[in-house]
Amino acid sequence: MAGIKYEIEEQIGVVSESSKGWTKELNLISWNEREAKYDLRDWAPEHEKMGKGITMSREELKKLRDILNDMDL
Amino acid sequence: MAGIKYEIEEQIGVVSESSKGWTKELNLISWNEREAKYDLRDWAPEHEKMGKGITMSREELKKLRDILNDMDL
Repeated sequence: MAGIKYEIEEQIGVVSESSKGWTKELNLISWNEREAKYDLRDWAPEHEKMGKGITMSREELKKLRDILNDMDL
Repeated sequence: MAGIKYEIEEQIGVVSESSKGWTKELNLISWNEREAKYDLRDWAPEHEKMGKGITMSREELKKLRDILNDMDL
């Protein structure tokens, strides 16, 4: 994505890996030098390309955690 | 998004709500009449418009839950 500057400040965890080596990861990422946000996104090997994803605040992650803990997974 | 057919089969939980009424939701959604997937996404009020989001399998949700439970949120 041209023009978007980002820095992965912390790699928190890998949710899955596809047969082509793309990984779905939860990271802490700073976009355009702003304060870092939690980011759940697909990445090509070595983070060479990024796929679709969403950013979340700490409060959103907490709420998501509570929702997942209430599910019968 | 023109041409994409979807059905929200289950509304699992709301992660957050913005000042404009958009909500970040975890739902079980069938896309183009295929088997339903878990979907984390922003929605306008009444699900009138959809924003960015990602779909996940049950296995991915489990792993994400474990990652979140290991974090000091």
